[in-house]
Amino acid sequence: MTDLQSAIAHVRAHHDYILRELIEFAEIPSVSTLPEHKPDMQRAAEYVEKVLRSMGMSNVAVMPTAGHPVVYGEWMGAPGKPTVLVYGHYDVQPVDPLNEWKTDPFKPTLAGENLYGRGVSDMKGQDIAVLAALATSLQHGGGLNANVKVLIEGEEEIGSPNLDAFLREHKQMLKCDFSLNCDSGILRPDLPAIVYGLRGLAYFELWVHGPEHDLHSGQFGGGVHNPAQVLCELVAGMHDSKGRITLPGYYDDVRKLTKAERAAMARIPRSEKELRREAANPPKMHGEAGYTTLERISGRPTLEVNGLYSGFIGEGSKTVLPAKAMAKISMRLVPDQDPANVEKQLRAYLKAHAPKTVRWTLQAFGKAPGVLTDPESVAAKAAAAALKTVFGKQPIFRREGGSVPVVSQIKDILGVDSVIMGFGLPDDNLHAPNEKQHIPTFLRGVESYIHFFANL
Amino acid sequence: MTDLQSAIAHVRAHHDYILRELIEFAEIPSVSTLPEHKPDMQRAAEYVEKVLRSMGMSNVAVMPTAGHPVVYGEWMGAPGKPTVLVYGHYDVQPVDPLNEWKTDPFKPTLAGENLYGRGVSDMKGQDIAVLAALATSLQHGGGLNANVKVLIEGEEEIGSPNLDAFLREHKQMLKCDFSLNCDSGILRPDLPAIVYGLRGLAYFELWVHGPEHDLHSGQFGGGVHNPAQVLCELVAGMHDSKGRITLPGYYDDVRKLTKAERAAMARIPRSEKELRREAANPPKMHGEAGYTTLERISGRPTLEVNGLYSGFIGEGSKTVLPAKAMAKISMRLVPDQDPANVEKQLRAYLKAHAPKTVRWTLQAFGKAPGVLTDPESVAAKAAAAALKTVFGKQPIFRREGGSVPVVSQIKDILGVDSVIMGFGLPDDNLHAPNEKQHIPTFLRGVESYIHFFANL
Repeated sequence: MTDLQSAIAHVRAHHDYILRELIEFAEIPSVSTLPEHKPDMQRAAEYVEKVLRSMGMSNVAVMPTAGHPVVYGEWMGAPGKPTVLVYGHYDVQPVDPLNEWKTDPFKPTLAGENLYGRGVSDMKGQDIAVLAALATSLQHGGGLNANVKVLIEGEEEIGSPNLDAFLREHKQMLKCDFSLNCDSGILRPDLPAIVYGLRGLAYFELWVHGPEHDLHSGQFGGGVHNPAQVLCELVAGMHDSKGRITLPGYYDDVRKLTKAERAAMARIPRSEKELRREAANPPKMHGEAGYTTLERISGRPTLEVNGLYSGFIGEGSKTVLPAKAMAKISMRLVPDQDPANVEKQLRAYLKAHAPKTVRWTLQAFGKAPGVLTDPESVAAKAAAAALKTVFGKQPIFRREGGSVPVVSQIKDILGVDSVIMGFGLPDDNLHAPNEKQHIPTFLRGVESYIHFFANL
Repeated sequence: MTDLQSAIAHVRAHHDYILRELIEFAEIPSVSTLPEHKPDMQRAAEYVEKVLRSMGMSNVAVMPTAGHPVVYGEWMGAPGKPTVLVYGHYDVQPVDPLNEWKTDPFKPTLAGENLYGRGVSDMKGQDIAVLAALATSLQHGGGLNANVKVLIEGEEEIGSPNLDAFLREHKQMLKCDFSLNCDSGILRPDLPAIVYGLRGLAYFELWVHGPEHDLHSGQFGGGVHNPAQVLCELVAGMHDSKGRITLPGYYDDVRKLTKAERAAMARIPRSEKELRREAANPPKMHGEAGYTTLERISGRPTLEVNGLYSGFIGEGSKTVLPAKAMAKISMRLVPDQDPANVEKQLRAYLKAHAPKTVRWTLQAFGKAPGVLTDPESVAAKAAAAALKTVFGKQPIFRREGGSVPVVSQIKDILGVDSVIMGFGLPDDNLHAPNEKQHIPTFLRGVESYIHFFANL
């Protein structure tokens, strides 16, 4: 059993050391979606491996998959006690548009109370927080109150395409009573939170093809259906004037927010004004009619354009009639939408609305259903108590708009629930330029994880 | 007076030499829109200067402008005879998408009867054809039947932003009776043509801005109006279901095609099937209801999307909610549309339709009104006779869909009409990958220009 007092004192005396560990980890540009970063993926995996070994874990290994490897390690010194599977990922999002970063994304930079750099919040900061908590807990006292297995994957930012196979193949090794998922955040530095719901994801790349090659817009303009125009018409038609998604049957399986949930959301101290600031000040908030912003971004499904490309996008003018046009489109899903069904709905929409003047192709990327977990589980209660101790305040149970596909994969394959507790903040610029991690929150995260393991 | 027989015989004996001149010229990557090609622009100008000097022209100079220089030369050896201003441009379009080129765009490559490379048709091929014709005509016999001034500019592909000032500043030097514009083509290798009408151009870059930076589509998706979606809605709304443009007042000033013009167009032997092939086989032709394809691409105004950009367009997936989205949009105009008025119409449309959830900015590029010239002028008749002699067939008088802004600038500033005669072909892939020039047509072009100057 960890000597809590000594563990917490140790953390407080070694802030610099823990932060240095995060900086070193975040310096590795482990962008999973870009092939040129493959060697960096290996370096990041080996960095995690080194950390697991240094805290005395067993069976530590960088385990190959069909894509980027998974790092695993375990401490099984509490026979008869519950086993926790700690989940994290060591990959990060791409950094473009690079010119909008104020600092080098892979030279983590301290400014005021924040550390800036790609991945410092999503989720290398959370990885280091939980690993530092484990290391400290193991050093102080006679071991942990629970058995711990750690799984840090390298493909979360590309939809974890090989995690499913990995979980199935290593089902025995990964056997556990519940999972701790650290890929999350709290609402404000003084407002601890536990996530009990996550949205799912379906991601697509749509191409509209017209002529076999680009044409001169003077020679043929007016006589050929412009694929960029057709793409715009198709995308425009995917929402109606009330902000609702028009894919046929899209809302059929959407589990409605209960009255109790809507009431609980209304109590969360996150005003429309604050939300607008967190969302980088769009001129005006916007979304599905009949719902608050908080409901729209956590409890309701979406359809977003993530990218658009066609024709000439350099400086100046080029009078081209493009041969083709592309949109990256993704949906955030809520229970009980089935991502495979959503793909069918999108195909049905395109079939019904794409004109005969063009051809189209649709490629599907990672898919994950939405998730709701039990806020009354033993693990959730241990997490809530830990947050209460460290932050001095009862945590809020809330639904989050992002997707953590692994939560549903772990439920499906390993048969266990996840407790979702991490220490990012809403204005951390995840997936965007100038990503940051709030250092005091990160350090409270380390302490919270120590209490969590002790509370089990 | 040129000894026609000897001049034509000389051309036929020196095909290789003339072609080599075109290849050398086309090897210079004079892409006017890209700053990195500035030195190439100078090289291309100096190449033209060398050609003008070698044929014994006077006052030959590379003349600076606020942008790329103009090359000028003259032969004034026929006092009392009319003066022709020959117009060409030495700049070319960008080459992207480069990966769709089968050969290096700046290593002109012969394959069958065609030469492939950027600018070989638009319009270095036409430049070399008219310059070779002038050189040959001057070498054979006692000079030309007319005075000739040659003006080759370097900014046509970016809308000739500095030509207006140049024409005004050098009005006296450029004084002439009419202009020969070589930036054009014929319909088929066996179907000579003279262009009497051209469409104008108005070109814009539209940006839609939402949040101040990219957001995570899970964190904020559903609560913020996606700028890429707004852009698609704005672009989609610019056409109605009949293929008509919805900008307020857009058709008010459009000069209607006359019955006689529509009848003449119907007689042009260019079937819908051929047009579809020339347009790189879109699945189905499309355009404004109530008009044939030929009418749509030459006698009716358009609105085209030339480029689209937003968010993440690399390989794979990135779940970003983009901060902004961009469309390059241009209109081909017919008489009597005023490009400045069209900009007002676009701004009025955007003002009326852009939602309050975003901000937008609009930048205007080159502008030119549409043009109709007199097919009964002395110069037009000399051109028609030349084509009849070389091709053995009466040329077709036709309207072209592209824009040659200089034709209206020369009319406005120098007060003269242009005869528009060039030797590209409809399938030359102008402004697109794999641009080509049909060599036998190019060589017939040289002969046609020789006859044209002799016919004056």
